[in-house]
Amino acid sequence: MANTKKNKPKVVIIGGGFGGLEAAKRLKNNSLEVTLIDRKNHHTFQPLLYQVATAVLSPGEIASPIRRILYRAKNVEVVLGEAMKIDTERKFVRLQDDSEIPFDYLIVAAGARHSYFGNDDWEESAPGLKTVEDALEIRRRVLLAFELAEREAILTGEHEPLSFVVVGGGATGVELAGAIAGIARNALAHDFKAIDTQNAQVTLYEGADRILNSFSPNLSERAKKDLEKLGVTVHLNSFVTDIRPSEVKVGDQWVHTSVAVWATGVSASPLGKDLEAEVDKSGRVLVEKDLSVKKHDNIFVIGDMARFEQENGELVPGVAPAAIQMAKTASRNILNDINGKPREEFKYWDKGSMATIGKKKAIVEAGRIQMTGFLAWLAWLFVHVITLIGFRNKLSVLGDWFWAYLTRERSARLITGDSEELEEALKFIEAKPHFAPFQKSKSKKQLT
Amino acid sequence: MANTKKNKPKVVIIGGGFGGLEAAKRLKNNSLEVTLIDRKNHHTFQPLLYQVATAVLSPGEIASPIRRILYRAKNVEVVLGEAMKIDTERKFVRLQDDSEIPFDYLIVAAGARHSYFGNDDWEESAPGLKTVEDALEIRRRVLLAFELAEREAILTGEHEPLSFVVVGGGATGVELAGAIAGIARNALAHDFKAIDTQNAQVTLYEGADRILNSFSPNLSERAKKDLEKLGVTVHLNSFVTDIRPSEVKVGDQWVHTSVAVWATGVSASPLGKDLEAEVDKSGRVLVEKDLSVKKHDNIFVIGDMARFEQENGELVPGVAPAAIQMAKTASRNILNDINGKPREEFKYWDKGSMATIGKKKAIVEAGRIQMTGFLAWLAWLFVHVITLIGFRNKLSVLGDWFWAYLTRERSARLITGDSEELEEALKFIEAKPHFAPFQKSKSKKQLT
Repeated sequence: MANTKKNKPKVVIIGGGFGGLEAAKRLKNNSLEVTLIDRKNHHTFQPLLYQVATAVLSPGEIASPIRRILYRAKNVEVVLGEAMKIDTERKFVRLQDDSEIPFDYLIVAAGARHSYFGNDDWEESAPGLKTVEDALEIRRRVLLAFELAEREAILTGEHEPLSFVVVGGGATGVELAGAIAGIARNALAHDFKAIDTQNAQVTLYEGADRILNSFSPNLSERAKKDLEKLGVTVHLNSFVTDIRPSEVKVGDQWVHTSVAVWATGVSASPLGKDLEAEVDKSGRVLVEKDLSVKKHDNIFVIGDMARFEQENGELVPGVAPAAIQMAKTASRNILNDINGKPREEFKYWDKGSMATIGKKKAIVEAGRIQMTGFLAWLAWLFVHVITLIGFRNKLSVLGDWFWAYLTRERSARLITGDSEELEEALKFIEAKPHFAPFQKSKSKKQLT
Repeated sequence: MANTKKNKPKVVIIGGGFGGLEAAKRLKNNSLEVTLIDRKNHHTFQPLLYQVATAVLSPGEIASPIRRILYRAKNVEVVLGEAMKIDTERKFVRLQDDSEIPFDYLIVAAGARHSYFGNDDWEESAPGLKTVEDALEIRRRVLLAFELAEREAILTGEHEPLSFVVVGGGATGVELAGAIAGIARNALAHDFKAIDTQNAQVTLYEGADRILNSFSPNLSERAKKDLEKLGVTVHLNSFVTDIRPSEVKVGDQWVHTSVAVWATGVSASPLGKDLEAEVDKSGRVLVEKDLSVKKHDNIFVIGDMARFEQENGELVPGVAPAAIQMAKTASRNILNDINGKPREEFKYWDKGSMATIGKKKAIVEAGRIQMTGFLAWLAWLFVHVITLIGFRNKLSVLGDWFWAYLTRERSARLITGDSEELEEALKFIEAKPHFAPFQKSKSKKQLT
């Protein structure tokens, strides 16, 4: 086996997200040696991360071990490690322990994180949502806020009002805000006895004049109304200009918040800078029509890291279907090279967009087709369940959703973290300044 | 409601384990005000923690939010907090933020942790297994060990031999060792391509002359044979005398280990020292026949924190059924006081013991009844599933086991922790000294 392998071209894929995984699958059992590098041992189904953050799903239900997904791909090796540097001349990827992985072809699919527009210190007070760890951190903060209010009410008879702030009215922000409102109104309502969780305020701030602005304006308007029915206060044309612990500055005014979540801004992986190609202000790499980079036709960039302008002048959006389609083109172009065929150009097929609002509503838009309400939610559910990678996960996620739907129970409602971390968290939240504009709410119960 | 409450006796329960929860349930909807304090928001089903540690189950499947379990108990409040101090004279419990919770009656059910016999610095190199966080840490180390060996094999063509050490041959140690061997031989065997996971060594060290010494000697012998069939090497009469990163000292000899787990020793919660009662060397409080402490008949100690000598001279063991039985007696004695009835004495009813060895075998002993092998495993499965608290958890756990059984898949096989932690872990494990007595194993694949 070692002999035959020596002549096979080596393809390295950086990233086990939608793009990287699809590329590995497309290249499997071909006459190639493939190495996939990821920092995590699992692929994360990012579209459902907000459900982990709001304690509907467990991490294991939206994440699958990469090895398990690829175990039938005999020519694909998986390496747990962080790609720190791409050497385009000597053709290798350097990992964090300085080990070097050589390549003939490279597919860079390292994705993007949220961007704080240069204010990285905001992250501690308003975490974003890109990884399982992010989701668990947000879940911990949200659940702890309720726990601390309950404790305060038991001990003192009153409590700081609960106020959740979501910054950004894209799909993630809308889904998070809807889900937090859902927790407060339904799932937790019976569990807490000294506080009325239904009094919790959920506020969404969006800088533009409408939320979900990748959709048609009438759908944005409908989504806003649906959110408001769930109890979410939506502020449009509202820029968050500063963040500190327990407070968010909107325009000129500081607003108290129990928990703030950041759901806006995109910053592509810094690996893009190693490719001697032009990058835009979000760090995305300008790619050629075949998805390779200008000076290195053996290096492809796909997914959230790639900036690809379509013929109509629109950019391909940073969504899972786009990453998967790019992976197909990039991997086909590698095989075309090997088979002596010409490369093909990338064409994005927009399958439409969907966003869910709370537990029973969504908006869907595909070309001229628009759907809203419960029917749209069913469509959303169907699409997400069938695309969830891994058979087991599908059944389990469907089971959990169905259960949550029937009983309004939150099955994954654990606060984890060791006791020192909890101590820290308690101290941090207890130390928050009481903010004047909000009156203390009366608790339901008076302690004697 | 506030008026009527003033005259009701206040009962505080410290701990949401088996004992504390049972006490809260027994006191629910009586003419009492009950406050349950726990550091975590969830009850942990400790007998199945080893399955979280070995990636068979997810944390959410063996842990339930305490509020959810008690939400129908209208007179029971749940406070998230850590009890730091019991003031027996002024009758209050002080939490970590110096808030004080007053009581008329107190049930102390704060449990025990593993004890390193004064060598607390061993914990970093050989964590124990008492909480969900412990289980996730052990899982992370075990899975990372395989990942790092795979990476080493891919990069260099060979790897450090994988060696897992479990210290202690009680039920937890036996279950962990069997489950780790099972992972290496079945669940992970197909996922890794450069290493042969079946070559991983699993070794169990027990200081006594047999494992599982709460069972009859013939069952200990059978369990040892079953473990050995799974590939576990069992060393009896072997004391671990020192531990440092990647090495365990057995008697006079240092032994290399990829991951070590501590599964012996018991140390009761330090809260026992606040009660002006005698404590034994494990920190357990000597309780009276009614489970109260000598000088304070309004304070009860139950579960792993209580030392209770039966009429036959044997101590009540630190197991879930004993804690639950003690909770019944303690709560009945509080109700007896209020109703002007005499207190009752605690009688332990030994329902028998069981321990599982790998995925299909167990030993069971109840009085004269002994069971081994698959039948015992079915009995073990039945008892654990029906006693898992919470309807949802039961179904889900059964589903996961069944799935694992059918497919040998490990569904919960995620390594979580943020990337900095991963970095730390990688560095830590990479920095481990190569140990002479073990030869480097040949990897299955040679990298070109």
